[in-house]
Amino acid sequence: MATAPSVSYSMTVRLEVPASGTAVSQLTTAVESHGGSVTGLDVTASGHEKLRIDVTIAASSTAHADEIVEGLNGIEGVVLGKVSDRTFLMHLGGKIEMQSKHPIRNRDDLSMIYTPGVARVCMAIAENPEDARRLTIKRNTVAVVTDGSAVLGLGNIGPMAAMPVMEGKAALFKRFADIDAWPICLDTQDTDAIVEIVKAIAPGFAGINLEDISAPRCFEIEARLREALDIPVFHDDQHGTAIVVLAALTNALRVAGKAIGDIRVVMSGAGAAGTAILKLLIAAGVKNAVVADIHGVVHADRADLVDAKADSPLRWIADNTNPEGLTGTLKEAVRDADVFIGVSAPNVLDGDDVAAMAENAIVFALANPDPEVDPAIARQTAAVVATGRSDFPNQINNVLVFPGVFRGLLDAQSRTVNTEMMLAAAAALAGVVSEDELNPNYIIPSVFNDKVAGAVAGAVRNAAKAVGGAVTGATAS
Amino acid sequence: MATAPSVSYSMTVRLEVPASGTAVSQLTTAVESHGGSVTGLDVTASGHEKLRIDVTIAASSTAHADEIVEGLNGIEGVVLGKVSDRTFLMHLGGKIEMQSKHPIRNRDDLSMIYTPGVARVCMAIAENPEDARRLTIKRNTVAVVTDGSAVLGLGNIGPMAAMPVMEGKAALFKRFADIDAWPICLDTQDTDAIVEIVKAIAPGFAGINLEDISAPRCFEIEARLREALDIPVFHDDQHGTAIVVLAALTNALRVAGKAIGDIRVVMSGAGAAGTAILKLLIAAGVKNAVVADIHGVVHADRADLVDAKADSPLRWIADNTNPEGLTGTLKEAVRDADVFIGVSAPNVLDGDDVAAMAENAIVFALANPDPEVDPAIARQTAAVVATGRSDFPNQINNVLVFPGVFRGLLDAQSRTVNTEMMLAAAAALAGVVSEDELNPNYIIPSVFNDKVAGAVAGAVRNAAKAVGGAVTGATAS
Repeated sequence: MATAPSVSYSMTVRLEVPASGTAVSQLTTAVESHGGSVTGLDVTASGHEKLRIDVTIAASSTAHADEIVEGLNGIEGVVLGKVSDRTFLMHLGGKIEMQSKHPIRNRDDLSMIYTPGVARVCMAIAENPEDARRLTIKRNTVAVVTDGSAVLGLGNIGPMAAMPVMEGKAALFKRFADIDAWPICLDTQDTDAIVEIVKAIAPGFAGINLEDISAPRCFEIEARLREALDIPVFHDDQHGTAIVVLAALTNALRVAGKAIGDIRVVMSGAGAAGTAILKLLIAAGVKNAVVADIHGVVHADRADLVDAKADSPLRWIADNTNPEGLTGTLKEAVRDADVFIGVSAPNVLDGDDVAAMAENAIVFALANPDPEVDPAIARQTAAVVATGRSDFPNQINNVLVFPGVFRGLLDAQSRTVNTEMMLAAAAALAGVVSEDELNPNYIIPSVFNDKVAGAVAGAVRNAAKAVGGAVTGATAS
Repeated sequence: MATAPSVSYSMTVRLEVPASGTAVSQLTTAVESHGGSVTGLDVTASGHEKLRIDVTIAASSTAHADEIVEGLNGIEGVVLGKVSDRTFLMHLGGKIEMQSKHPIRNRDDLSMIYTPGVARVCMAIAENPEDARRLTIKRNTVAVVTDGSAVLGLGNIGPMAAMPVMEGKAALFKRFADIDAWPICLDTQDTDAIVEIVKAIAPGFAGINLEDISAPRCFEIEARLREALDIPVFHDDQHGTAIVVLAALTNALRVAGKAIGDIRVVMSGAGAAGTAILKLLIAAGVKNAVVADIHGVVHADRADLVDAKADSPLRWIADNTNPEGLTGTLKEAVRDADVFIGVSAPNVLDGDDVAAMAENAIVFALANPDPEVDPAIARQTAAVVATGRSDFPNQINNVLVFPGVFRGLLDAQSRTVNTEMMLAAAAALAGVVSEDELNPNYIIPSVFNDKVAGAVAGAVRNAAKAVGGAVTGATAS
């Protein structure tokens, strides 16, 4: 499972090279001999004696990139210039900006966009607050809120370091669903404070996308905000993941020829994503799920559960899974299982474990960047394998879900998001893969499939309209 | 002081008119006979029998607009169609949006803008938080924060109804200073809560523009935020107004041939703007200022001040103004004064009061839309008259100030904003009017003068750099 050179570790190296001799021809060879990949080579200045060459190279890690640069530096006659990291270059000054929709060319424009004309618009909203969705940006605006406590797989890096992810999320909202999202990175990790802050900033937004907030705080924050606010609140790490997993599972079961009510699912991981996936799978008809965490299979008599509070997530799992009362390890539980879903840690299973699963087994190994089991090995015996990685088939990626879900919620002016809407989103996403397209290596569409966001949005919009606009407080978790 | 027809009450009326006869020629006459003004007349469809005509009309109020439409409807043969309010049309769907700076065309783009590439950028910031100003939008981003408690002259209309103003402000930040601002409209008017919320959302911003927060809460909120945050906090209603007033006064004194240290200034209004103006004028060298509020001239022995707390704004005024110990009414105080500055209520002075001021008097009557004294009458005896209105010369408008001030603060990566920076901003703004241009009707440049923002920004940047980047907590108020 060695990582291949990737554009996410891509750099452009400026070199001065003698015009004669073999140095030029040695460049590509040197990069490749160090395991890198040349993706571009531009002569940016040329003279009788010297050439200036910009070589763009994909590496597989920062250390690997350094090693390749050293290799280039070692070629006789080559003078190393500036090394530009392409990912960092794209981040300079940030990735998003604010734009005015109207030009402000003269006093007439100013009088309508700002004072005195704007006063009449303000008064119209004061008299009829619902007009805010017609006369302000609220209609199409989502807050991407984090406290920086669980950013990607990086952990608790804080609000400032979380900004690049939240900006990226905002950019994806625009790209895939034409939604105006703005990052709100909070300098507090106190549950009460976060709830109060998000409640207070809600007037200017039509939806709240919670992002990268660690468990178990994320459960309480989301539940309290849903209770308090009249706009939908969606923790993407939970529900976005749950929806895309259910969509992928729906199609994987079509490939495997099994019905959702008949399967036994074994999950590794009982965190935010795991719990949300579990709840949505049960809502979708899964009757036999078994969850394992770092202490093994979750069951009601497990030592750490006997005294667990009635409202603890683990208690909920114990009460709602494992109908056969299994105990023991993940590896034991996975034997004869139809489906394995990992949202936990690298390499908790091996090929023998997958081989011991039921016929036509389905393996979703979603730990990133290193899956629960090597997908290539799993695929030797399993019928369908999916991961979170972009360099294997069947990438389980939230980008398939959150833009369309929010597009549908905003279009319906929904005040809530509930399980029915999430089930509808998953069904619509699964449905984008036609019967003709479906196969073990294509259970889920590409994020660049332009049918995805519209299909998900339409399904969510219809489900939201069925609920009606007046419903507040949700029951999605 | 009847209000003239204005584009801020502009509408487009669709009419069907007989192709023959005099109806067409009557349209303009009818609008003008009702006191409106035709600013456009487009035939949008034409046939043998009928014309469809879109008439764009400026009125002076909503009631006036209705009256004009009735007048058009009364012309024989005219069939009234849709009436579109141009100001409301410009607000449909809101006035600003979020834009991605980079296209997201393929998986390579996605890998650099979002996962997995973004993780390296996050880690760089986690290791060196100062890099947030290099690798995120923080560098160029300002939060426009309100609680909707004192919006324009409309009062406490709440956060949702305040949105159009805050969006407009964000659009002006972009137009005049290329700053990315986003509105944050808070659903609380509790001082402690607002302080906590703004502190918490600060990581993603390089400056906080407080807006339309009522006095006296605005003083405490600003002071506490300045103490707590390492980015500048600026209440535009106070300091933006103070800076533009000082700039205008500087030039008015050039016209009147008086020195700032020699003048007696009488102010009407002791609210947020009045207090800020007063403090900045004193910092600029005014030695004799007298303030009157609804109870008359402020002096230490006034009944309501004897028991006032030591830190109350009115107590500060009593202790720092009125060196001659005047008592009595505004009208009495203004006799023989060199400068009158009104930030209070309509028609508190008349022509006789202005005539009783000193030679070469300066009158800034800034109440909006109806000034403290009719500017046309004041101008009969005063040397210089300025108002907040766009339909008289010398408009005192914050738009001249806040974009440049924040541009300078952001460019200097300033952690604070202080009195020296505000004095520098005022001097720079005054300096945009050259000696050749200066006259009683041109003491302050137009908001569309393209030298303004750059001049103000440069002065603030230099003043901020003189302070140095490491200073936190400010002393501007």
